[in-house]
Amino acid sequence: MGSLKSEEALESNCTNPLDPDEFRRQGHMIIDFLADYYKTIEDHPVCSQVEPGHLSDALPSSPPYMPEPLETIVDDIRKHIVPGLTHWQSPNFFGYYQSNASTAGILGEILCSGFGVVGFSWVSSPAATELESLVMEWLGEMLKLPRPFLFSGGGGGVIHGNTCEAIICTLAAARDKVLREIGEENITKLVVYCSDQTHCSFKKAAQVVGINAQNIRAINTTKVTEFGMCPSSLKQAIARDIKEGLVPLYLCATIGTTATSAVDPVKELCRVAEEHNVWVHVDAAYAGAACICPEYRGLIDGVELANSFSFNAHKWLLTGLDCCCLWVKDSAALRQALSSQAECLRNKPAESKKVIDYKDWQISLSRRFRALKLWLVLRSHGVANLRKYILSHVRLAKLFEELVGEDDRFEVVCKRNFALVCFRISPSALGKQVLSTGYLSGDASIDNDNIKDGHTVEEPVTTTANINDVNKRLLEEINGTGRVFMTHAVVGGVYAIRFAVGATLVQERHVRFAWKLVQGHADAILRDRP
Amino acid sequence: MGSLKSEEALESNCTNPLDPDEFRRQGHMIIDFLADYYKTIEDHPVCSQVEPGHLSDALPSSPPYMPEPLETIVDDIRKHIVPGLTHWQSPNFFGYYQSNASTAGILGEILCSGFGVVGFSWVSSPAATELESLVMEWLGEMLKLPRPFLFSGGGGGVIHGNTCEAIICTLAAARDKVLREIGEENITKLVVYCSDQTHCSFKKAAQVVGINAQNIRAINTTKVTEFGMCPSSLKQAIARDIKEGLVPLYLCATIGTTATSAVDPVKELCRVAEEHNVWVHVDAAYAGAACICPEYRGLIDGVELANSFSFNAHKWLLTGLDCCCLWVKDSAALRQALSSQAECLRNKPAESKKVIDYKDWQISLSRRFRALKLWLVLRSHGVANLRKYILSHVRLAKLFEELVGEDDRFEVVCKRNFALVCFRISPSALGKQVLSTGYLSGDASIDNDNIKDGHTVEEPVTTTANINDVNKRLLEEINGTGRVFMTHAVVGGVYAIRFAVGATLVQERHVRFAWKLVQGHADAILRDRP
Repeated sequence: MGSLKSEEALESNCTNPLDPDEFRRQGHMIIDFLADYYKTIEDHPVCSQVEPGHLSDALPSSPPYMPEPLETIVDDIRKHIVPGLTHWQSPNFFGYYQSNASTAGILGEILCSGFGVVGFSWVSSPAATELESLVMEWLGEMLKLPRPFLFSGGGGGVIHGNTCEAIICTLAAARDKVLREIGEENITKLVVYCSDQTHCSFKKAAQVVGINAQNIRAINTTKVTEFGMCPSSLKQAIARDIKEGLVPLYLCATIGTTATSAVDPVKELCRVAEEHNVWVHVDAAYAGAACICPEYRGLIDGVELANSFSFNAHKWLLTGLDCCCLWVKDSAALRQALSSQAECLRNKPAESKKVIDYKDWQISLSRRFRALKLWLVLRSHGVANLRKYILSHVRLAKLFEELVGEDDRFEVVCKRNFALVCFRISPSALGKQVLSTGYLSGDASIDNDNIKDGHTVEEPVTTTANINDVNKRLLEEINGTGRVFMTHAVVGGVYAIRFAVGATLVQERHVRFAWKLVQGHADAILRDRP
Repeated sequence: MGSLKSEEALESNCTNPLDPDEFRRQGHMIIDFLADYYKTIEDHPVCSQVEPGHLSDALPSSPPYMPEPLETIVDDIRKHIVPGLTHWQSPNFFGYYQSNASTAGILGEILCSGFGVVGFSWVSSPAATELESLVMEWLGEMLKLPRPFLFSGGGGGVIHGNTCEAIICTLAAARDKVLREIGEENITKLVVYCSDQTHCSFKKAAQVVGINAQNIRAINTTKVTEFGMCPSSLKQAIARDIKEGLVPLYLCATIGTTATSAVDPVKELCRVAEEHNVWVHVDAAYAGAACICPEYRGLIDGVELANSFSFNAHKWLLTGLDCCCLWVKDSAALRQALSSQAECLRNKPAESKKVIDYKDWQISLSRRFRALKLWLVLRSHGVANLRKYILSHVRLAKLFEELVGEDDRFEVVCKRNFALVCFRISPSALGKQVLSTGYLSGDASIDNDNIKDGHTVEEPVTTTANINDVNKRLLEEINGTGRVFMTHAVVGGVYAIRFAVGATLVQERHVRFAWKLVQGHADAILRDRP
C-alpha cells in the first residue's frame, strides 16, 4: 500500500461525502428539480419513446476517474434519463396498476435514507422496529382486520418490499410447519393452489421455495364468476390431489386481480381450505387500499378464516415503492422458517423476548426504515382524506365507465370493482362480418394472436375477424401518441384495454381527455375498415 | 356508496397529495432537518438508550382521522423517533459493518422515489433498466471482474436489495439447473457448502429455496487459516456427501466475513468445486468495495472460476441501503429459475429479445430505480476519490490497530484485512491467574458464556477465569456511555470487540477518542479486579 502517502496529499481536495452544508445545498437543488418535474410532467410523452440502447449511446461506457459536479449530472438526467422514463406519476398514466407517489411518502423516503439506520433487530435501532409495529397496528385497525392478525391479538404485521416476498415468507412458514409433521423428504408432495387470474409472482414464489412445478394448481376461472375462483373447483382439485397421495399446502386468494380486479370469494374458499388444513393467504396487493373505506371492507369478509393477508401500500396508498404490508396470525411459524441466529446478533433485549426482531419476519437481514413513510402518509392525510382519495379515483373510473357506456361502439368487458375499467371496441361495431368474439376460459396468459380451440366456450366464437386485433391496434395507437398510457389484459380470450385510475395527480379533465382520445382513434380505425 | 356526495363536499379542503408547491416547501423543510441532524449528530448517544415500548407509550394507538401538519410530525420525530435511533451515520458508530450514507446516495434515493417509476421490464421505464445495466458494467470494470461476468462478455449485473436475495436467486438458478438433469424429486439430495464463518443469511437462503436443513454443511474454520475456509476440508466434505449418494450443489465463499473480515481462498475453493460442477458464489458483501482499490483486488483472484459474485454497495460504497450488486456468468440459468410470464407483461421490445427485463433476474416483479443512486455516487466522487475514501478508513483502522499494539494490556485477536480491528484485553493483563484463553474452533455462534469442551483446542484453555466475561463487560460499559458504539464477535471461543471503521463522517479524532474511552474503561475494570 505504498500509494497511501500520495492519497494523503490529495485528501485536502476531497469534501466529506456527507458534509452537512453541501448536503443542504444539493438537497435543495434536487427538491426544486422534482417540484419543477411535477409542474411540467404533462409535457412529456407518458410512455417513453426511446429505442433500446438509448442510454449506452448517450453516456460514457466507463466511470469517471475524477468527481463531477451535481449540476453536470442533473443536466444529464434532464437530457438522457427523463426522456427514457415512462412517467408513472403522470396524471395521464392509466397503465398496469399505479405505484402512486406523494409528498408525504417521498419525505418518508428522504428521512429513511437520511437517517440510514438498519433495523434488523430491535436493538440495532429501536424506533425503526417500534414505529413499524405501531403503524401496522394502525393500518390493521383501518382495515378492520380481525384481532388475531394484530400484535394486540397474538399475530402481527411487518413491512416487506413486495408481494412476492410476502408470499415466499408465508409459503416457507406453511411448508416448514407441514414438513415438521410429515418429514422434509416429502417436500415433493406439497401442492399449492391459485387461479388462472392469480398474479404470476405466485408461481415464481412457489418455485423459489422448492414446490415442484407440477404441483402448482391454477384453477380455471370463467366469465360466469367474473373471473373469481370457484370454491367447488378448488374442492375438486384438492380432493384429486389427496387421492393421488399429495399434500395440499397453501392457497392464494386474490382481492383485485391484476388483469381485471376480480375478487375471489374469500370466505367460501377458506371454508374449503380449512377442511384440509391448507394455509390461506389473501393477496389484496391492489385493492387492499380500498378496504380502508367502509364501502369496500365487505370484500375481505372471511379474512378472519385466513392465515395471512397482504396489500401494497405502494400501489394505491401513497407511499411509493416499496411498501408491502403483511399480517400473519401465526407469527411463530414465520419466525421458525425465517429466523437467523449468529453470535454478532445476540443482545439482551432479544434474549428478554420482550421485543420484535424483524429480521426473523422477512427474507433478508438488513432492512430499510420503511415505516417512516407509511407513518408520514397516514398522519399527513388522516383516515378521512385517504378514504376520500381512494373514492375520488373510484368516482373517476365510474365516470369513464359511463362514457364507455354512452358510446355503443364500445363495451365494458367485465365488472368494474374498484378504479379499473376494462373495455373494448365491441364486436358489433365491426358490422355484420363479426357476430361476437366471446369468452373462453379465463387464462390471462392465453396467446391472443392465436386463440386456441378446446377451451370452455361460453359464447359463440366467430372466426371471421379478429376483434382482438382491432383493439390491440387501438391501444397501440393511443399509446403511440404519448398523450396517455394504458395497458391490456386478455381474459377468457377477450383482449381488453385496461383503464386504471390511480395516479396521484389525476383529475377529471385527464379522464375526459383520455376518453376523447380513445374515441378519436376508434373513429379512424372503424372508418378505415373495408 | 351513499357517502360519495358528502365526500365531494369535503374535497375542496383537500390538497393534492403531490401538489408541486407544497412538495417544494415540505421537501426543503426535511432537507434542512437532515442537514441540521448531521451537524449535531455527535450530540446524541450513538446507541439508543430507550426501553422496549418507548414509542407505543409516546404515540397514539390509533391513526389520526384528520390530517396533521408536517410541523407537528417533525416535532414528534425530534422528540420520539430520534432518541429511539441508534445513529448508524454517527462518526462514533463502529458497530457491525457500516451502512454508509452520502449526499450523492441520498439524492439518488430522492430522485428514485420522486420519479416513482417501476422498472420491472425494459418497456415499463427504459432508462431504469438501461442505467442499471450501464452502471453495473462500470462497477464491474472498477472491480476488474472477468469479462464473462459483464454484459459485454455474455453475463451481466443486477441490483438486488440484499445479499440474502442474491443468494436465493443464484441458489434457485443452480438448483433448477441440476434438477433439470436429475429430476425435481431429487431436491432432497442437494447439498450446499459454507464455512462456520459464513453469514447466517446463507443458511436461511438455503432453507428458503427448499434445501434440506440436514444438507447444509458449515465447514469448520480455525485460527490456523485465520478463519478462512480450508479447501481440503471442503474436498473431504464433498467426497463424503457423494459417497452417501447426495448431490453437491452450491458453495458460498466469503471475502470479508461478518465476524472478523476473514477471506476464503477463492481460487483454491473454486478448483475443488469445479471438479464436481458445484456452483460457486463469492459473497464480498462487506469487502467487495475495497476491491476497487488495486491494493485489494488480489483478494478476489480466482473469481474468474466462480459462477456469481456479489457485494453490497450499501455497506462501504456510499449508496446507503439498499444496493446489493450481483453479477452472474450464466444469466440464462438465472432467468430460467426466475422469469415470470403474464399477458399483461407482454410487449414488443421483450419479444424482440433485444432488451433486459430485470423482473427475470430477481425475486419480485416490482423494483425501485436503485441504479440512480449508484450512478450518482460513482459520478459525484469518481473512481479516484472512492478509492481514497476506502483507503482513508483502512488507514484509520490501522491507526487503531497500532494504538492497541502500543498498550500491552490489549491484543489484536486476528489479522486485520480491511478496516475492521478485532481486539480484546489480553489474558496476560489479568495477571497470573490466567495464562491464556485460546482459540477453539471457529464457530461464530458458540455460546461464549459457557465455552464447551471437545473443540479443537489450539492453545491451552484456562478455566480459572473468564477473560471473555471481562471483555464483554468492557464492551457493555463502553457502549453504555453512549459516546461510541462497537459490537462483538466470538471466534474460536474468543470474545473479541469489533472496531469497524466505515462511517462516512468518521475522522482521526473519533478513532483516537474511541481508543481513549476503551483504555479508560479498561483501567477501571482491571483496577477493580481482586
